[in-house]
Amino acid sequence: MSGSVRIRLVQMDVLPGRPWENTERMLAHVNTARQAGIELVAFSEMAVPGYLLGDEWERPAFLRECEACGEALREAARGIVVMFGNVGLDWHKRNEDGRVRKYNALFTAEEGRFIGPTGSPYPFVIKTLMPNYREFDDSRHFFDTRKLAAELGRPVTDLITPVRAARWRIGGVLCEDAWDEDYAFSPLKILSGAGADFFVNVSCSPFTFNKNHKRNRVFSAAAVALGRPLAYVNNTGLQNNGKTVFTFDGASCIYDGQGNRVDGPPAFQEGLLDCDMPLGGTKPFGSPSGTLENGVADLVAALRYGTGRFMKLCGVERVVVGASGGIDSAVVAAIYGQILPPENLLLVNMPSRFNSPTTINLARVLARQLGCGYAEIPIEDSVRLTRTQIDGVRIQGPAGESRLALTDFLLENVQARDRSSRVLAGVAAAFGGVFTCNANKSEMTVGYTTLYGDLGGYLASLADLWKDEVYAVGRYLNAEVYGREVIPEGSFTVVPSAELSPAQAVDEGKGDPLVYPYHDRLFRSWVEDWNRATPEDILDWYLDGKLENRIGYGGAVKDLFPTPAAFVADLERWWNHYQGLGVAKRIQAPPVLAVKRRAYGFDHRESQMGPRYTRRYQELKRRITA
Amino acid sequence: MSGSVRIRLVQMDVLPGRPWENTERMLAHVNTARQAGIELVAFSEMAVPGYLLGDEWERPAFLRECEACGEALREAARGIVVMFGNVGLDWHKRNEDGRVRKYNALFTAEEGRFIGPTGSPYPFVIKTLMPNYREFDDSRHFFDTRKLAAELGRPVTDLITPVRAARWRIGGVLCEDAWDEDYAFSPLKILSGAGADFFVNVSCSPFTFNKNHKRNRVFSAAAVALGRPLAYVNNTGLQNNGKTVFTFDGASCIYDGQGNRVDGPPAFQEGLLDCDMPLGGTKPFGSPSGTLENGVADLVAALRYGTGRFMKLCGVERVVVGASGGIDSAVVAAIYGQILPPENLLLVNMPSRFNSPTTINLARVLARQLGCGYAEIPIEDSVRLTRTQIDGVRIQGPAGESRLALTDFLLENVQARDRSSRVLAGVAAAFGGVFTCNANKSEMTVGYTTLYGDLGGYLASLADLWKDEVYAVGRYLNAEVYGREVIPEGSFTVVPSAELSPAQAVDEGKGDPLVYPYHDRLFRSWVEDWNRATPEDILDWYLDGKLENRIGYGGAVKDLFPTPAAFVADLERWWNHYQGLGVAKRIQAPPVLAVKRRAYGFDHRESQMGPRYTRRYQELKRRITA
Repeated sequence: MSGSVRIRLVQMDVLPGRPWENTERMLAHVNTARQAGIELVAFSEMAVPGYLLGDEWERPAFLRECEACGEALREAARGIVVMFGNVGLDWHKRNEDGRVRKYNALFTAEEGRFIGPTGSPYPFVIKTLMPNYREFDDSRHFFDTRKLAAELGRPVTDLITPVRAARWRIGGVLCEDAWDEDYAFSPLKILSGAGADFFVNVSCSPFTFNKNHKRNRVFSAAAVALGRPLAYVNNTGLQNNGKTVFTFDGASCIYDGQGNRVDGPPAFQEGLLDCDMPLGGTKPFGSPSGTLENGVADLVAALRYGTGRFMKLCGVERVVVGASGGIDSAVVAAIYGQILPPENLLLVNMPSRFNSPTTINLARVLARQLGCGYAEIPIEDSVRLTRTQIDGVRIQGPAGESRLALTDFLLENVQARDRSSRVLAGVAAAFGGVFTCNANKSEMTVGYTTLYGDLGGYLASLADLWKDEVYAVGRYLNAEVYGREVIPEGSFTVVPSAELSPAQAVDEGKGDPLVYPYHDRLFRSWVEDWNRATPEDILDWYLDGKLENRIGYGGAVKDLFPTPAAFVADLERWWNHYQGLGVAKRIQAPPVLAVKRRAYGFDHRESQMGPRYTRRYQELKRRITA
Repeated sequence: MSGSVRIRLVQMDVLPGRPWENTERMLAHVNTARQAGIELVAFSEMAVPGYLLGDEWERPAFLRECEACGEALREAARGIVVMFGNVGLDWHKRNEDGRVRKYNALFTAEEGRFIGPTGSPYPFVIKTLMPNYREFDDSRHFFDTRKLAAELGRPVTDLITPVRAARWRIGGVLCEDAWDEDYAFSPLKILSGAGADFFVNVSCSPFTFNKNHKRNRVFSAAAVALGRPLAYVNNTGLQNNGKTVFTFDGASCIYDGQGNRVDGPPAFQEGLLDCDMPLGGTKPFGSPSGTLENGVADLVAALRYGTGRFMKLCGVERVVVGASGGIDSAVVAAIYGQILPPENLLLVNMPSRFNSPTTINLARVLARQLGCGYAEIPIEDSVRLTRTQIDGVRIQGPAGESRLALTDFLLENVQARDRSSRVLAGVAAAFGGVFTCNANKSEMTVGYTTLYGDLGGYLASLADLWKDEVYAVGRYLNAEVYGREVIPEGSFTVVPSAELSPAQAVDEGKGDPLVYPYHDRLFRSWVEDWNRATPEDILDWYLDGKLENRIGYGGAVKDLFPTPAAFVADLERWWNHYQGLGVAKRIQAPPVLAVKRRAYGFDHRESQMGPRYTRRYQELKRRITA
């Protein structure tokens, strides 16, 4: 077919679990699109209900509401073709869990009617390829095309056919359907074989650092191979699965059949992409594909957007940050400084006898440079009271009276809990707001945090960033976002420290037991590698002389440890923390704002099983330490 | 075929994530079985690796270890046929997430060889029906028979065929394969059609209250319909998915073709089931199926077993319970009294000015009757210090100096946090142990708990029980487990109260704002119903006069509320808590010990989205309150 289609992609915030709120906005968009002479308007995957809803799909009342919203959109589709994602329901059939049959569906409405693929029993396109990795649980809730084909006793190709609307044969697919690399077949190719004039991919695809680059490569290659344009529409906004919070950057665009691209609205912004999309022929209509990645700028955008949207979701307007003078809390404060009016942001420094004037002053300077509220609330009296009370307890027990004693080591956690659960929680309540968790991914990985202490808070904005990424974000905030020093230089240069004992005195250069440039890379291989590494792999690489290269560490591991045995002991120390108490702490951690692959919580799922080593690890260890 | 098979089912504790530890024990069982003249010994599903492992499946080193364990079992299978669950690997293929191809597999080994189904490309049986509901994520990690059939371009029936070992055609299936009610086809029927002589179902099926009854009904009917014996082997032990902890009761047994049963070891105990299982003919060899349920006794067994096993998993030997004098903490203490020597159990009462002598005395009596340690640590001084500090803070801010104030209401949470995060956490550390979370499911549902306060702790043993179930468990503990009054009668009869303000004074009969007999049933309909109810459903039932019946409330709702509007206001109050702050609190809650359907965490998955009402709800509300 030749000619063109005047298409509009609506990159819109989708509110999860609020179908009518989304639908009202979609209906308005349908009207304005019609008035603008648009022929085909497309919304994202699950634009009506939202996508990451936990088990909300198990509520028939919610499903009926989604269905009613779809009917309203169907009715509104007059003089324009409307495509949108919604849950597709078959009340006469069951899912394999015994609940009503549900599909992750793409609806096409024209002149008040839904139009399904020519070969399908349903008036909607069904998502064929189901992601069940990372934060995705599609098969938990939705029946897929392959199962339907098996149920109907028909080949899957019968069901994957174009939608005939207006004068087009539209190849409609949903998100993963176009990420077919690891699947046995390709819905796009099947649709192409069935004569699709162009492709529309509706997605609800969370932002992940550097993911746009990969999508661009995959989708662009697909459009070229198919020789047809591929329109990609994704939503903005924020959705979560409880433990893990995801941002959506949109990044909607159209790929022409020549490897070029028409870009839509900026990342994390609502907006429209209008295009007279030529059909047939091979004339390119897009621009040569530029990069879609901007490095740390993307991270900062996601952190700021995600933090702000999560506040809105929770109805939070006032925020307290425990400011230690270190880099993590400074970066968190600087992010909130971009979101909140200064009078709604309060920094609280809570010194004990172990906090140096250096870091207290850094916290003061940070608040001054942000222009926000600041207070100092010492914890010394309370910690002393706790020690006196617990040391003074007389336990009446089976063997008569006994005593307890809080050692200096235990007093470190007492301080951390006193700060968060006593002071910050109380101050946040009195301030009419919440307090933040400033933990980074390095700390989260090995549980270098105190439960009910610095691991408390309503959201952990930095918990998907390694320490070096926190520094990079801080530098970027000063240089590019604020254009001045907001985070004091001293917070970048002071030795990272919890300042909970004399062994962590920053003015003597003492601090965290982690060598971040090395340990961050080590931990990353355990957590973020697609085929995640274990100590067995680490020792293999070490013996092969490839460890630095495999984990991406710029230095030499042998310079960090006096002996191979010391290297192994360090490895086991942190692995034990990661698989031991680290898991227990993460189970009770605040929601993590995901910005990369494998954020803790629902993306990187864990079981509490204790530290484990393979037999082969033990053999390798014997070889190394012999 | 006629004759019989001398079969042994091994009901064994499986340690998740520890393949060699499991395999060493399995190898010992293979040897003793051979010596005992057993012809066929069967272990449970995923007996080698464990089953609920989070994303541990993404680690190739772990998979290689599992494979090596399987090889050891294969080698040991001489003079005996050995069946066991393990991960089945195909290193030459990929899963749809791009990682190595994995199957949830049943291996059969004979004379040092693995024997697969006659029509399968693999030397193992593949799980065909994949549960992806509740705590199950099978499709996240494992490729199934239907996908394999599609990939090979063969009908699924080609692949679901018996295993020919010794002189038998064994119909081997995995867990869900026999729960085929909601699936389009039945692996058991396909195997029957292919001539299976008998069936072996290997499972890793968590305990759920009243589930054995259902399994008995389904499996017994299947054995009768197929006219062949069905052996069911399930493991014991404890496995978890981080947020939610599951016990396994075993309940291994054999169903004959006549609806009778041969029972295996008692629930929650390791042991063997030996049987000369007749083949062919229809002579029954089991006993008439008795009930498998014992009501509250089952709950108590699961709570005690699960709590004890979780302690062992975490390496916990000493436990502190914050004892308020109320029923929840008393039941928790009484459970630990069954697990720990009395000197390792410490009860701590932490009175403020709002705690009545009545409840303090109940805590004392409880400790005395348990014979465990007891201490009283008042929180009044610390709460006063916190109030003085926060009220005394001067915030330096953009608009000059400002002040904060802790209201009486905010002081309620200050008390709760002081108890858990300051006192209990400190005492537990000094005691060399952990402290417990005593929250029940009613409190968890509506967030009637304080984060970092009474919602803190290492495990929430009662968090899957409604308040009335907590009382029933307490009564059972006194009457049947201890055989004497351990939990004081006063803890059953005192009004449930947080005792955080004068409005909650128990001696004046004041307490929690929940009418438990009604609200428990209401909440249950929101949480535990398979098709979960919403306020829309509640109003529908109310208008139809069916509400009490639908939610199982013994009283009359109209007696609880002066007006229909008051009924609606109460409904919205708790729904707002459940969908609002309740979710936020549950995200940071301790692991929940699951004993029923839909425990919070990983069984009942949630997204933070704020309270939501359908349009139809609003219409019904207008009708009711007009």
